Amino acid sequence: MDTPLGPGAEFDLIRAFLHSRGEAGRWLPPNVLVGPGDDCAVLRTAALAVSVDMSVEGVHFRREWLEPEEIGYRAAAAALSDLAAMAALPAGVLVAAAVPTRDAGDFMVRVMAGAREAAERAGTGILGGDLTRTDGPLVLDVLVLGDCPSPVTRRGAVPGDALWVTGELGAAAAAVSAWQRGRTPALAARTAFARPSPRLAEARWLAERGVLHALIDLSDGLAGDAGHLAAASGVRIMLETDSIPVHSAVLSASERPDDRLRLALAGGDDYELCFASPPGVVEPLRDEFVAQFGTGLTRVGSVSAGSGVSLRAADGSERELEFAGFDHFGPPQP
Amino acid sequence: MDTPLGPGAEFDLIRAFLHSRGEAGRWLPPNVLVGPGDDCAVLRTAALAVSVDMSVEGVHFRREWLEPEEIGYRAAAAALSDLAAMAALPAGVLVAAAVPTRDAGDFMVRVMAGAREAAERAGTGILGGDLTRTDGPLVLDVLVLGDCPSPVTRRGAVPGDALWVTGELGAAAAAVSAWQRGRTPALAARTAFARPSPRLAEARWLAERGVLHALIDLSDGLAGDAGHLAAASGVRIMLETDSIPVHSAVLSASERPDDRLRLALAGGDDYELCFASPPGVVEPLRDEFVAQFGTGLTRVGSVSAGSGVSLRAADGSERELEFAGFDHFGPPQP
Repeated sequence: MDTPLGPGAEFDLIRAFLHSRGEAGRWLPPNVLVGPGDDCAVLRTAALAVSVDMSVEGVHFRREWLEPEEIGYRAAAAALSDLAAMAALPAGVLVAAAVPTRDAGDFMVRVMAGAREAAERAGTGILGGDLTRTDGPLVLDVLVLGDCPSPVTRRGAVPGDALWVTGELGAAAAAVSAWQRGRTPALAARTAFARPSPRLAEARWLAERGVLHALIDLSDGLAGDAGHLAAASGVRIMLETDSIPVHSAVLSASERPDDRLRLALAGGDDYELCFASPPGVVEPLRDEFVAQFGTGLTRVGSVSAGSGVSLRAADGSERELEFAGFDHFGPPQP
Repeated sequence: MDTPLGPGAEFDLIRAFLHSRGEAGRWLPPNVLVGPGDDCAVLRTAALAVSVDMSVEGVHFRREWLEPEEIGYRAAAAALSDLAAMAALPAGVLVAAAVPTRDAGDFMVRVMAGAREAAERAGTGILGGDLTRTDGPLVLDVLVLGDCPSPVTRRGAVPGDALWVTGELGAAAAAVSAWQRGRTPALAARTAFARPSPRLAEARWLAERGVLHALIDLSDGLAGDAGHLAAASGVRIMLETDSIPVHSAVLSASERPDDRLRLALAGGDDYELCFASPPGVVEPLRDEFVAQFGTGLTRVGSVSAGSGVSLRAADGSERELEFAGFDHFGPPQP
């Protein structure tokens, strides 16, 4: 990219972010009227989805856990997952970073290379951003833009719907749990945390088939995110314990069923999709979905009139899930 | 706004941000398909300008200097200034915040009220954001969106053009300089720093009259930002010392001409416009501009073939401005 900034160390670093990808990576699609290096990026679009997601060192990750590229990849993938949650098509990424002075060299170039890789895997690229120093921890704020002619919100679930999730849950939380106990996580768990896969194509595939009443991505954990979906739709959600697709990395990380369930329900950072659909409409599509994406599709519960989220055990007993009660098991607190 | 989030302290705080404005403030214009509370905001638009601007406590401001509302106002106004720099019409603001735990109450509600006030003064509102804790300083990242059918970039200056700025320069830097020396800044200087006025209407007014070849906003200071404009346009810029509109608060803050010039040229945080126009086209508009906006319009230099930025003194002597040479006088280093 032609990046016409004036001289100075900050601008040298911005140029390094943009140029380290080589000629082949000069991503600037026809809908971008103005690319990086001006005061704003400008996009031509009909309806645009916009979200920001902030990653703070010591809160969302520790640098001892991750390679610099993974810090950037993870931050961008988590933000892109919000586009998946609207069934939007990625159209651009901006990255703002508050950087400790000692990191303002190769370390940050590698962080940004990871963010760029995540953007490119999602079919888009980095359109701009901001760079500042900080006396505190590294902070990345990733802004994502997506074409979104037909947004699928959290609001459309109705009583009678079935609740579904993609993939398997709890692996990223199992990695965090291992690190916090001074252990090395299983590779599958580590990868789930370091390089999550936002379900962008999967969400559009489901949206195109008209089966989505309401959609959210799992960032806080199924218990909390089902709570958001229930609140937005004005419905009650019942999850069934035996249906939760617990990731195999969780099974190997803990032998206690309660711990496993906590990681899968409230561990967070899954970046899978959770959606409500009319009963019976998803089952006929499941084999094709799994064949196309190599990702599972599991019915985990049902929607009824009321509010809140409950969990039904195999013996039929039911208990209310208080999201606040899950807080201390909740998002990683490194 | 109807903000259907699940239970939890974080979501209570988000609700407080959105609801503290009262019924009258439920800003959601017809071009917003999805407002706050879902995974993304969605806007209907033809061409959208996007920018992010990060404000870090201890780097861009100190909390001893500002009221909480001013911290938010300033961060949002600085970001909105990037829309002015494209002659874009504000269409939405998102705010991501990394918040020290002790601030996650009234303090942050007041910060966000300030950000919202700046957005509303610009004719728009807060569409969403992200909220996380941090063990470090407060970090605000403000994302601005603007309708921008005809972007004015930094690239169009050509030899022969005149270089102009709006307003007066150096007042915000004079405030920072006073605080750093343990003094109380003059009210005008303090206001310039705490509540800058992004020149949104001014930029569109000038753009509509077809006089803008290239446009940038002054955030780093005229010396540095003229350098960006020169680099982007592939031209040389000469500034004339005697033409620089030095703010009266700078004159009262220092008696040394060199100090005054440094504050006006390299102090930063002015958030005025700097633009290149064909010779003679701005002069006939100046009276109307000043009458309409109450803001000055001053020719500060000229554009020629070459590269870089130079400064010509009243005696005709000329010296090259090395942006790096201004770094240590440069952006506020609280």
